[in-house]
Amino acid sequence: MDAVRLMAEQHVPGIVVCAPDGRPSRILPGTQVLRFVIPRYVQDDPALARVIGERAAEQMLGELQGRKVRDLLPDRPETDLAVANPDDTVLELAALMARLHSPLVAVVEDDRLIGCVTLPRVLDVLLARPSA
Amino acid sequence: MDAVRLMAEQHVPGIVVCAPDGRPSRILPGTQVLRFVIPRYVQDDPALARVIGERAAEQMLGELQGRKVRDLLPDRPETDLAVANPDDTVLELAALMARLHSPLVAVVEDDRLIGCVTLPRVLDVLLARPSA
Repeated sequence: MDAVRLMAEQHVPGIVVCAPDGRPSRILPGTQVLRFVIPRYVQDDPALARVIGERAAEQMLGELQGRKVRDLLPDRPETDLAVANPDDTVLELAALMARLHSPLVAVVEDDRLIGCVTLPRVLDVLLARPSA
Repeated sequence: MDAVRLMAEQHVPGIVVCAPDGRPSRILPGTQVLRFVIPRYVQDDPALARVIGERAAEQMLGELQGRKVRDLLPDRPETDLAVANPDDTVLELAALMARLHSPLVAVVEDDRLIGCVTLPRVLDVLLARPSA
């Protein structure tokens, strides 16, 4: 619940999950986070989503309380992680985002997460007309 | 170029392409728009992305000038469009976003696009504690 709230409040396009040693272990785009919030049976049945009332939707979200991000992750570890180094070029970040369909990239230095770059930020930089 | 600039400036998670009759024909998440900006050969070769200098990157983007969104779309029409009706529930929108991996949904009324809803907005509403 905290993770989803963070995403909503900060309007970031996803979350980075780190292992205890500080390395990113998963990078979840927002649409994937939604898959945790909404039970599978609702995702698979659009008609069901339609008839679920506000009260039931609240209850559904209430069930998230106390559950950990770890519990919601599928077992299969991510093989192709959207991770970059501080030395990478903006074009490399952009190519990585395009290839992995990830609107955010984690930046790792010395095996630790030092920040994230989002897609709008990359577009900003790519499109900035250089003045010099 | 205008479409990409719009995305960057407004920090929206994607663009909706409409047919001449006003109906949305494609809904492109930002990561897919990046695929237009960055040539395929660069996406496929991370080492190449690394060595392309700023000047060459600029030139690459310059090649986008004058090209139309239409020219960049793959021929295959989208079968499963992230489109909703004004009457749909927020939960339906969320389920749609989760199922189609789309961080934005076009809202259509009387065969015309009347607006878009983005993922952070849906999360905002889903997580809002009702006061009554």
